[in-house]
Amino acid sequence: MRGGPSADELARIQRQLAGMGHRELVGEISRTDPTRGAKILRLLPPERSSHVFDALGPAHQAAVVRALGGENVVNYFGALGAEDRVALLDHLPAEIAERLVRELDEDDQRVTSVVLGYKKGTVGRRMSPKVPVVYPEMTAGEVLEELRRGIDSFETIYTVPVVDADRVVCGVLRLRDMLAAGEDARVSAVMEAASVFHSGDELEDSARWLLASGRLAVPVVDDDNRLIGIFTYDEAHDVVEGENTQDSARMGASEALRQPYLTTPVIRLVRSRIVWLLVLALSAILTVQVLDVFESTLEKAVVLSLFIPLLTGTGGNTGNQAATTVTRALALGDVRAGDILRVMWREVRVGFTLGAVLGALGFALATAFYGLGIGAVIGATLLLICTISATVGGLMPIVAKKVGADPAVFSNPFISTFCDATGLIIYFLMAKSVLGI
Amino acid sequence: MRGGPSADELARIQRQLAGMGHRELVGEISRTDPTRGAKILRLLPPERSSHVFDALGPAHQAAVVRALGGENVVNYFGALGAEDRVALLDHLPAEIAERLVRELDEDDQRVTSVVLGYKKGTVGRRMSPKVPVVYPEMTAGEVLEELRRGIDSFETIYTVPVVDADRVVCGVLRLRDMLAAGEDARVSAVMEAASVFHSGDELEDSARWLLASGRLAVPVVDDDNRLIGIFTYDEAHDVVEGENTQDSARMGASEALRQPYLTTPVIRLVRSRIVWLLVLALSAILTVQVLDVFESTLEKAVVLSLFIPLLTGTGGNTGNQAATTVTRALALGDVRAGDILRVMWREVRVGFTLGAVLGALGFALATAFYGLGIGAVIGATLLLICTISATVGGLMPIVAKKVGADPAVFSNPFISTFCDATGLIIYFLMAKSVLGI
Repeated sequence: MRGGPSADELARIQRQLAGMGHRELVGEISRTDPTRGAKILRLLPPERSSHVFDALGPAHQAAVVRALGGENVVNYFGALGAEDRVALLDHLPAEIAERLVRELDEDDQRVTSVVLGYKKGTVGRRMSPKVPVVYPEMTAGEVLEELRRGIDSFETIYTVPVVDADRVVCGVLRLRDMLAAGEDARVSAVMEAASVFHSGDELEDSARWLLASGRLAVPVVDDDNRLIGIFTYDEAHDVVEGENTQDSARMGASEALRQPYLTTPVIRLVRSRIVWLLVLALSAILTVQVLDVFESTLEKAVVLSLFIPLLTGTGGNTGNQAATTVTRALALGDVRAGDILRVMWREVRVGFTLGAVLGALGFALATAFYGLGIGAVIGATLLLICTISATVGGLMPIVAKKVGADPAVFSNPFISTFCDATGLIIYFLMAKSVLGI
Repeated sequence: MRGGPSADELARIQRQLAGMGHRELVGEISRTDPTRGAKILRLLPPERSSHVFDALGPAHQAAVVRALGGENVVNYFGALGAEDRVALLDHLPAEIAERLVRELDEDDQRVTSVVLGYKKGTVGRRMSPKVPVVYPEMTAGEVLEELRRGIDSFETIYTVPVVDADRVVCGVLRLRDMLAAGEDARVSAVMEAASVFHSGDELEDSARWLLASGRLAVPVVDDDNRLIGIFTYDEAHDVVEGENTQDSARMGASEALRQPYLTTPVIRLVRSRIVWLLVLALSAILTVQVLDVFESTLEKAVVLSLFIPLLTGTGGNTGNQAATTVTRALALGDVRAGDILRVMWREVRVGFTLGAVLGALGFALATAFYGLGIGAVIGATLLLICTISATVGGLMPIVAKKVGADPAVFSNPFISTFCDATGLIIYFLMAKSVLGI
């Protein structure tokens, strides 16, 4: 290790790492670049190092795998659950991915390829195929035996799917209910009706539903309702957190980072933002054109230009408020695409009320400093801008969802640009008619 | 029920409700006003209706309680866990809250008042005090017996705190490990080292940590490390979703709604937005003043006003991108307050790169249409604005966190206003020096 730390120093660092808790260690690796993260992993005892690796997100894992350059990677990879393995594979170049899969043992290869067979963005892709199988006629004691036998490979044993002879799911057994019922109770007497996911179900909605329901896991079935795996709350949590990060990024007009901020190279931060920024800047040329049309009006009353940022800013803010609220409500399932008219009618009223308050205030202040004419223009413009912006801001996310786009993308950035241009047109038309210029 | 539906019609509606799944029913109530929600609950069989009520958020539950006018409320209330009961009480007027607590049975009153004793925003306030107690010297068989005895009252039996004679937590037992070890295994041989929360620990951080760790539950202890309750993943999920909703709302410059969008009265939507809108409009008066200062420059070259929305918009977008990314990274723990200098240096480079790209483009386009002088002003202004906005946008959330404010509040809204004013000053100073006016 040319130029690296001495043996003494390594021993000191290892002692220091041994003194850190799991949480602290994961935090440290999430806040440093992947090369240094890989060095830390190398210095940990094998089992601990696998455990820490497991706790990183898949894109971050992939960056660490590349920094490790092959060393130990198979051990980390083999220790992951099938669903986590697939998530990592999705972030690796094909040749590394293929090599890793080849080096797994046969059983692990099989379950990994089952999960790999499902489309990204479906429940099948994030389920665990290793699931205990119990039948309605078994007793609680027999179930316990069955669970004990496979306990190291099952993702969860607390929620157990019950299947008939054709492997069709006919119920779920909560371990808790089974323990309460006693050794001799039959599964059929204790099991509950099963909520199941189909392998092709949309991932985010399913994950949100599972978490909101308080369930620990939900069985996954194929088109014939036959059991193929189980989707657990911790996978669901990872999915939902990823989607929340994406929504938040897109509402701020950038793409989500796939690994922790401080581990992401600066050039990738630039890439996550530049496209949006260019799109928005180019669409903002619309505002230059609108103002160009009204240049003669501006020349006659330069005072009008003083209020441009105030008016466009207020319109943008009102639109963003509505869009943010509706986008989040859509994500949580509180609003659906079919509610579009109800949302519109609510936002018209909200926007009008907000516009009335701001318009009155704007009228009073502008009249005091710039005279009644300007005051009237500013007041009326604010009333109209707020009503239109809130309505459009509330509708855009639903329209986006209807046409199959991400509601968060259509929220803030586009709404700001739209509100800017509309606001300016309203402003100058109002000024021309009120001031007679 | 004057003017209400006939007996026939009621029977028809009841049949319709009976045909709906739990998830569908909860969705229906989340998308209708509380009065209609209460009517639906009244028509359901008692147990089912409690189950549906349990699935609503606390503020929504409170609205339904008021709409129910006392009827059946005690049953719903008694069926909740202690931590959910307390969350609901927080949203009810004092007299209703007191009456509900008085009508609980003695044991439920006791656990409810334990949880009520902890401050809002701490783990203690959302823990479940009903937790099984096992000792290191017990065998697996004895633990199972103990769990069976209290199985209806314990919030979870899958993660069991192990305590010594002083009730000090000395480990946790995963039911799964215990089953794997067999009847005669001692708890001390199977238990793991415990991660615990203290009752006063900050709620959001603790909840995020629990979910990221994949644990089902973490024991809660008092200052002497004595067991007082357990914090479960489903409570943690509710906490984190609530915080995510709040962050998303504040980044869009409004306050989070506490109940589903379509169940919230219009006047409350207005209230969640008006304060922010006023604050932002008043601070936007700053931009009017900046422009007022440069009015003579504007009169000499009205063409400068055409670019105002484009420049302020781009500055705001760049600032928001940085702020959104850093806010989310702070929430996830990927960035901490101590990382401020690292974040600053990254954002300076990112902002400069973005500014160089946009500035070059702006220079080319503006030169083509408005001449070299204007082109140079626009290009240089964009470079400076992007660098400053990204830097300020990245730093603001961390500064907010350092002074104890919500990073999301200080993100987008304030940054837009700040970037607008700074951008205009840069623009006009640049124009004066380059164009010599």
